[in-house]
Amino acid sequence: MTRYKAIIAYDGTAFSGFQRQPHKRTVQEEIETTLLRLNSGQPVLIQGAGRTDAGVHAYGQVIHFDLPQLRDTEKLRFGLDTQTPEDIAVVSVEHVSDDFHARYQKHRKTYEFLVDVGRPKNPLMRHYATSFPYLLDIEAMQQAIAYLVGTHDFTGFTAAGSSVDNKVRTITRATLEWSSYPNTLLFTFSGNGFLYKQVRNMVGTLLKIGNGRMPVAQIPLILTSKDRQLAGPTAAPNGLYLKEIIYED
Amino acid sequence: MTRYKAIIAYDGTAFSGFQRQPHKRTVQEEIETTLLRLNSGQPVLIQGAGRTDAGVHAYGQVIHFDLPQLRDTEKLRFGLDTQTPEDIAVVSVEHVSDDFHARYQKHRKTYEFLVDVGRPKNPLMRHYATSFPYLLDIEAMQQAIAYLVGTHDFTGFTAAGSSVDNKVRTITRATLEWSSYPNTLLFTFSGNGFLYKQVRNMVGTLLKIGNGRMPVAQIPLILTSKDRQLAGPTAAPNGLYLKEIIYED
Repeated sequence: MTRYKAIIAYDGTAFSGFQRQPHKRTVQEEIETTLLRLNSGQPVLIQGAGRTDAGVHAYGQVIHFDLPQLRDTEKLRFGLDTQTPEDIAVVSVEHVSDDFHARYQKHRKTYEFLVDVGRPKNPLMRHYATSFPYLLDIEAMQQAIAYLVGTHDFTGFTAAGSSVDNKVRTITRATLEWSSYPNTLLFTFSGNGFLYKQVRNMVGTLLKIGNGRMPVAQIPLILTSKDRQLAGPTAAPNGLYLKEIIYED
Repeated sequence: MTRYKAIIAYDGTAFSGFQRQPHKRTVQEEIETTLLRLNSGQPVLIQGAGRTDAGVHAYGQVIHFDLPQLRDTEKLRFGLDTQTPEDIAVVSVEHVSDDFHARYQKHRKTYEFLVDVGRPKNPLMRHYATSFPYLLDIEAMQQAIAYLVGTHDFTGFTAAGSSVDNKVRTITRATLEWSSYPNTLLFTFSGNGFLYKQVRNMVGTLLKIGNGRMPVAQIPLILTSKDRQLAGPTAAPNGLYLKEIIYED
C-alpha cells in the first residue's frame, strides 16, 4: 500500500458538501467514484481534512488515500483531475508516509470569506460571495475582528448541539480588507482548527457589528460568556472558501 | 412617452445570448417580461447596444426603452433588478432624451477577455474564463496585440458570411496583462465598434501566436490580406465580457 496526499479545489455550488451522504451529490463520492475506476474497480476510501458544508468552496482541501501500487504522482493527478467532474480540480498529488492523516495530523487551516457589498449585487459572483448591500462601518469591524485572534473557547460561535467536547481553538490571523473583486470584502481566518459553522458565525456577527446593530465589544462578550444567543446569524455558505491547509513537520 | 437608458450586468452562462430568439432563454426576453409586468401588462421592447452571444457576460451592457409615464429612476431600477432573475442585475436607470439610441448613438465599447492559464484550470472560474493550460510567450502576444490598435479593415477577424458591409473599425486600446485572478490573463479591447466574433477571433489568434504556432507578424498579415483563413480559431465565449460602453456627448 502507498499513501497519497492530494490537494483538491472545488466549486461547492452544486454539491451537498464534502462528506458522503446517501442520495446526495458530494465531493467525497465523486472523487471515490473516480478512484475506483483508476483502481481496477476496487473501492478506495478518501479522508478529507475538513468537512465543508453545501455551497462552501475550496481551493486547498487536502485528502489522503491508499492505493496498492506506487504510481507516478503527476499521471495520477492528471487522471484524477480529468476524470472527476469539471467542478472539481486535482491541484497536486504526492506520496506521503503511511502515518500521514489529512484530518488528524496537526495543521493550520486558512479560510476566506467574500462579502459582496455592491448594490445591486454582482450577478456573476452570486454563488461565490455573500451579498450584504447595507451600510457597513469597516473600521468597527476591523476593531471587532482583532478580538478573535488568540486562544479562546469558541463555544459562542459554534452551532448549538455540536458534539466536540473541547471548544478551545487558537486563531493566528483574523483580518478584513477589500478584495481584488469590485465592492467585495475579504475576511481571512487562520488557525489550528475551527468548530462547526464557526467561520460563518464569526462573519455573521461581524456584519451585524458593521451594520451598527451590535457593539464592537460584543465579540469579547461572546467569547467569555460562551453564549451562542449573543452572536449574530450564520452567514450564508456561498462566500466561504477553504483556502489552504499547512501541516506541521 | 419617456425614454430610459439602463446599464445591465449579467452572467451569460445560462443564456442563449442577449437577443430574443424563439424557444430560447435570452437576456432580452427576461428583461422585457419584467418590464411588461411593471407596465400594467403592456409590452415594452428594449434595444441593446450590443448582441452578446451565448455564454458571454456583461458588466456594462446598455439598453433603452420607452414607458408612458415619467418614473422615479431609482424605484424603477430597484423594481427591475429585484424582479429579473438572479443572473441579471440592473446597475442603473436614467431618463434620456427621446433621440437616444443604445445601438446607433456613437459610443466606445470596452470588452475584456479572461484566460485561465492554470494547470489544472480553476473549477470556480470554469464559466468565467477560457482555459488555456499550454505554454504562452506573453511578450510575443504583447507585441502582436499592439498591431491591432488603430483604424483597420477587420474582415480577417470576423465570422465568414457577416452581413455588415463596412468592416473598418478603430481600436483605441488593445492590451494584455495579468488579471487580479490567480494564473489568469486579461485582454482589454476598446473601440468604436466590433464585428461579429471579432474579439473572440482576435483572442484565438493571439493565443495561437503565444503558443508559438504563428508568428507575431501574422496580425498585420491578417489585417492587410483580410483573409479569415490566416487567423486563429474563435476563442470560447465564456471568457468574454462586455465591460463598458461610453456614449459621445
